[in-house]
Amino acid sequence: MFDKEYDVIVVGGGHAGAEAAAAAANLGSKTLLVTMNLQTIGQMSCNPAMGGIAKGQIVREIDALGGYSGIVSDKSAIQFKMLNKSKGPAMWSPRTQNDRMRFAEEWRIALEKTPNVDFYQDMVSGLLMEGIKIVGVKTSLGLSIRSKAVVLTNGTFLNGLIHIGDKQFGGGRSGEKASTGITEQLVSLGFESGRMKTGTPPRVDGRSLDYSKMIIQPGDPIPEKFSYTPTTPLKLQRDCHMTHTSQLVHDLLKEGFDRSPMFNGRIKSLGPRYCPSIEDKINRFADKDSHQLFVEPEGWNTVEVYVNGFSTSLPEDVQYKALKSVVGFENVKFFRPGYAIEYDYFQPTQLKHTLETKLIDNLYFAGQINGTTGYEEAASQGLMAGINAHLKINEKENFILKRDEAYIGVLIDDLITKGTEEPYRMFTSRAEYRTLLRQDNADLRLTPRSYAIGLANEDQLKRMEEKENNSNKFIDFFRETSVTAEDINPILESVGSALVNQTGKMFKVFSRPNVTMDHMLQLENVSKFVAEGDFKRDVLEQTEIQVKYSGYISKEKNNADKLQRLENIKIPDNFDYSKLKSLSFEAREKLNAIRPVTISQASRISGVSPSDISVLLVFMGR
Amino acid sequence: MFDKEYDVIVVGGGHAGAEAAAAAANLGSKTLLVTMNLQTIGQMSCNPAMGGIAKGQIVREIDALGGYSGIVSDKSAIQFKMLNKSKGPAMWSPRTQNDRMRFAEEWRIALEKTPNVDFYQDMVSGLLMEGIKIVGVKTSLGLSIRSKAVVLTNGTFLNGLIHIGDKQFGGGRSGEKASTGITEQLVSLGFESGRMKTGTPPRVDGRSLDYSKMIIQPGDPIPEKFSYTPTTPLKLQRDCHMTHTSQLVHDLLKEGFDRSPMFNGRIKSLGPRYCPSIEDKINRFADKDSHQLFVEPEGWNTVEVYVNGFSTSLPEDVQYKALKSVVGFENVKFFRPGYAIEYDYFQPTQLKHTLETKLIDNLYFAGQINGTTGYEEAASQGLMAGINAHLKINEKENFILKRDEAYIGVLIDDLITKGTEEPYRMFTSRAEYRTLLRQDNADLRLTPRSYAIGLANEDQLKRMEEKENNSNKFIDFFRETSVTAEDINPILESVGSALVNQTGKMFKVFSRPNVTMDHMLQLENVSKFVAEGDFKRDVLEQTEIQVKYSGYISKEKNNADKLQRLENIKIPDNFDYSKLKSLSFEAREKLNAIRPVTISQASRISGVSPSDISVLLVFMGR
Ligand SMILES: Cc1cc2nc3c(=O)[nH]c(=O)nc-3n(C[C@H](O)[C@H](O)[C@H](O)COP(=O)(O)OP(=O)(O)OC[C@H]3O[C@@H](n4cnc5c(N)ncnc54)[C@H](O)[C@@H]3O)c2cc1C
Ligand SMILES: Cc1cc2nc3c(=O)[nH]c(=O)nc-3n(C[C@H](O)[C@H](O)[C@H](O)COP(=O)(O)OP(=O)(O)OC[C@H]3O[C@@H](n4cnc5c(N)ncnc54)[C@H](O)[C@@H]3O)c2cc1C
Repeated sequence: MFDKEYDVIVVGGGHAGAEAAAAAANLGSKTLLVTMNLQTIGQMSCNPAMGGIAKGQIVREIDALGGYSGIVSDKSAIQFKMLNKSKGPAMWSPRTQNDRMRFAEEWRIALEKTPNVDFYQDMVSGLLMEGIKIVGVKTSLGLSIRSKAVVLTNGTFLNGLIHIGDKQFGGGRSGEKASTGITEQLVSLGFESGRMKTGTPPRVDGRSLDYSKMIIQPGDPIPEKFSYTPTTPLKLQRDCHMTHTSQLVHDLLKEGFDRSPMFNGRIKSLGPRYCPSIEDKINRFADKDSHQLFVEPEGWNTVEVYVNGFSTSLPEDVQYKALKSVVGFENVKFFRPGYAIEYDYFQPTQLKHTLETKLIDNLYFAGQINGTTGYEEAASQGLMAGINAHLKINEKENFILKRDEAYIGVLIDDLITKGTEEPYRMFTSRAEYRTLLRQDNADLRLTPRSYAIGLANEDQLKRMEEKENNSNKFIDFFRETSVTAEDINPILESVGSALVNQTGKMFKVFSRPNVTMDHMLQLENVSKFVAEGDFKRDVLEQTEIQVKYSGYISKEKNNADKLQRLENIKIPDNFDYSKLKSLSFEAREKLNAIRPVTISQASRISGVSPSDISVLLVFMGR
Repeated sequence: MFDKEYDVIVVGGGHAGAEAAAAAANLGSKTLLVTMNLQTIGQMSCNPAMGGIAKGQIVREIDALGGYSGIVSDKSAIQFKMLNKSKGPAMWSPRTQNDRMRFAEEWRIALEKTPNVDFYQDMVSGLLMEGIKIVGVKTSLGLSIRSKAVVLTNGTFLNGLIHIGDKQFGGGRSGEKASTGITEQLVSLGFESGRMKTGTPPRVDGRSLDYSKMIIQPGDPIPEKFSYTPTTPLKLQRDCHMTHTSQLVHDLLKEGFDRSPMFNGRIKSLGPRYCPSIEDKINRFADKDSHQLFVEPEGWNTVEVYVNGFSTSLPEDVQYKALKSVVGFENVKFFRPGYAIEYDYFQPTQLKHTLETKLIDNLYFAGQINGTTGYEEAASQGLMAGINAHLKINEKENFILKRDEAYIGVLIDDLITKGTEEPYRMFTSRAEYRTLLRQDNADLRLTPRSYAIGLANEDQLKRMEEKENNSNKFIDFFRETSVTAEDINPILESVGSALVNQTGKMFKVFSRPNVTMDHMLQLENVSKFVAEGDFKRDVLEQTEIQVKYSGYISKEKNNADKLQRLENIKIPDNFDYSKLKSLSFEAREKLNAIRPVTISQASRISGVSPSDISVLLVFMGR
């Protein structure tokens, strides 16, 4: 039924699949997106929100690279917040609350506007192999569709099993079928699969809540947005609310613990440590008698509400009884109970940095199938897999982001180097260079790289260059321009900073704590320079950050450069670690299994110690 | 988990379920809508269109009664057409092309705005019975939810089985699970179930079609709308297109006939005769070497396209090969193949006129479960079941529409009197009083009746009364006002009608063929009367129809009145037909099974002859 051979087939239309298809297609690959239900493309399985700490940075990176998650989030946002604004700029993290239906619709529209993407609704039941070569996919309707490369993004669907209390049933998401066949075939081909679990809270009827008893959580007064492209920021926003559990709520929940699939052994796999279920929280933090709950609307027009923080797989009567004791939820009505889902994943150490599997050429895995959790983590992997699948079949060089270039680099390097036994999510603490990997400079870091391979477009590059040039100009201005004591002292006084007694470079005073761009703009020649250069908000922000944090930034750059040297020491492809008897036994095993490409990567493998690295360096004559 | 007892539980969120829930709730019943997936409420399973011949009239009737289908259709329309405008007004039929996603969204919003409707996502697995009394439903999560009445609207989901070529799999719709348990329980309670089938065409990628080879099908230049409420008519519209099959296409399709589940005996149940599959059409009309296909967009923004007229369950490779040979489809890409679905239905002779089952009090069936096909048929039954469930539990009188009052009356009377062995859809020919049951006067016919039971609101009634009063005034004006030969002859001449030679009543000339309201408005006193009365378009239209078709209309009214007399002859509840040996054997059997309420209903039962009716009349002393 498909005449032609596709370049790339993407299996699954979740966040990973959507980005993968868009990227491969926009680079020029004839791409087919096969997904079980065309009406659930870009579906948010869990909370209706994008971004947040470390994840917001990833969305910006995806956007800077020419992916769509940022644009789709902007178009479907109902609230915007820059989290951590009171901390240093490395911690600033954009987050949107989204309209769930609109988000999926915007993804669908974006993909339909991508000329190289074809669509097909069917379940992929296996890979089409010729010997050990992948040549496409097989579907449940019995079709064979040929392609040069395949990206698997099956999310939580592979042998998905839903748990609520002591009830279990197959499904990839509530109300959707599970996917069968793929795991079994991959295992027979030599892959190692595991089981993970994740959970989601009940959805409730907003009309049944008493918001007057909760704390209102409005969006930012001047909302920003994710994308560097000219999407429009929100004018109207919807409020969220906050409430909390209590000892009574916990006691009511505990009554169901003996029927909890988490505690009675029915669920064996590990869930995300950092998005724990409410039963997990009260179990692990037994001394806390209250946990926060965020009450989030599911869209502009719907009364459906997401109870963030109350993820649970307890029996539905227990969920209900407990939630009714939460302040503001006294009359709560359920749209549907929370549930947990178990699914197959593949240890990501079986992948290369390109997300290609080590075992089968031109087969890529991206998203939750790699043991991650979160839309942003999934989307970014999809983007990278889509890019690399395209590059590979066109015999071009890999596109790999390093740990000092992007959170995406950290994510993938962590996954393939360390693997994961529990759902992996991103944190700022996972990045050793987080002062470099800020949300404000993802375009400066990544757009030129993406442009070089043909993904980010001319417009994106130009916008980024303009921002970069103007910021540099402005920084130079601060470096070169002097300010008299007379002019600057009133400002210093107003912020309680020590006065100066002679003329000096603006850069120096600007670097002081408490002195902000707003203060500097009070100086006439500064505001004139801004007006003449027609500098926009992004330039002012970029300049401010680069001036005020220049110390931290250059220190991290130095560290990164040092490590880069280790990064440059490549380990030969078929290096035989078993020969190196002075390596620890564990190091030898891990190195043989993971096969790092550089000494630096080797150093990040858990179980490989600094002395093992020395052994390697000595052996390689360094 | 549900503290309280609901008044009405509606099972299923399709067209029937959505109207049922809205109606019961708006009348004041605490209503719960339980459906398998809250994201598919108001989903259009098949073509993205509402109305059409006879069906458009039903949508207007639903609207006049205070249902939501008309409003939802208006809000999500992408094209409007009044079909059959060249025929008499009894045949005029409004039809919209709709944005599939928007349609579902508008239904969801409308229901969420109905304060008495609660929502719950789960599969109902059975009825909650206490002895022979229904007291609620049981769900797949093991919940029992109590209510006074239950409306089942399971659509095509009961033991749904999807067929494509020689492949079969369980499902209620493509990509959705089937529903199990309910049929088995109902059968064990004494109900008789049957199997039906229906089918749907492939969805294709609009970007792959060559529209320049097809005939454009625009909407009406001045689009109207369904609802009598002040929804706004379309300003922009999307075009549809027309193309056709050919002998080659038919030959290619025939190559798959041996693998067709329709022809190789795998599908045993009957499909809708009047929405036949393409294989059915070329089989039944072997002499026709071409069939029309309508190429309909699925929404404002999507490239997905519905190939109306190409419903099929042939193997997907056959579908593809054949469709590629259709003019304009040479490069077609499939989004998904067509398929057929078999599902359980319940012979509707097991129901009363209220759609309550005869076997179990307070249990109602509505929609496809009753053997009908079509959104409009389903929606109208849902509305009537919702209304009657509410009235029954409040010990109020039934709400039954007669055959001369509404298509809905014809539909339900046909179903419960005659039953159906194949999917029943509405046609104008099924209505003996179709000149009375027009799309333009559904409000005049039904809004007062609905207002009387408290469903249609004050606004609706007022709008209807204004239209009625003004039309009556205007009709009287034509009856009473004379026009001179001098004034009218130029008009008569322009339309080729015989000239008059003396002054006469306007009504008479207006009644002539070819003389239209537009002509009459050329008369100064007519246009003055309109301006003074501030008569809107609907009043002009109503007046024109009532004047020009007054002959037909009063004839049908007379006939209806005559039959009404039979309608008034009630048959006692437990009448024992077996005693009446002079009845034919077949009549006795049918009458005993269907238990008509009136002589008139008895006369419509197939197998009951006029002489049987005479026997009955004699016996009853008439
Ligand atoms: C119940 C639940 C709770 C969650 N809770 C959290 C949380 O608390 N925090 C958090 O960060 N994240 C959570 N997530 C995870 C988040 O939803 C995922 O990380 C993210 O959606 C993964 O994106 P993905 O693209 O990898 O897969 P998914 O979004 O799961 O998409 C998979 C896609 O692949 C399709 N598909 C699957 N198999 C096939 C096949 N064989 N053929 C064709 N198509 C196929 C599916 O139809 C679907 O479109 C939760 C997910 C679920 C289901
Ligand atoms: C493949 C296909 C082709 C069709 N072709 C045509 C055609 O050519 N012409 C035409 O006029 N009509 C056609 N139809 C029919 C049209 O879609 C239906 O007549 C109409 O949708 C029926 O409305 P309904 O409300 O009765 O049921 P549906 O629209 O089927 O809705 C049923 C609802 O009930 C829910 N449900 C089912 N079981 C349960 C349960 N146990 N618990 C909770 N919820 C449940 C489902 O989730 C769904 O929301 C077709 C339908 C299908 C599926």
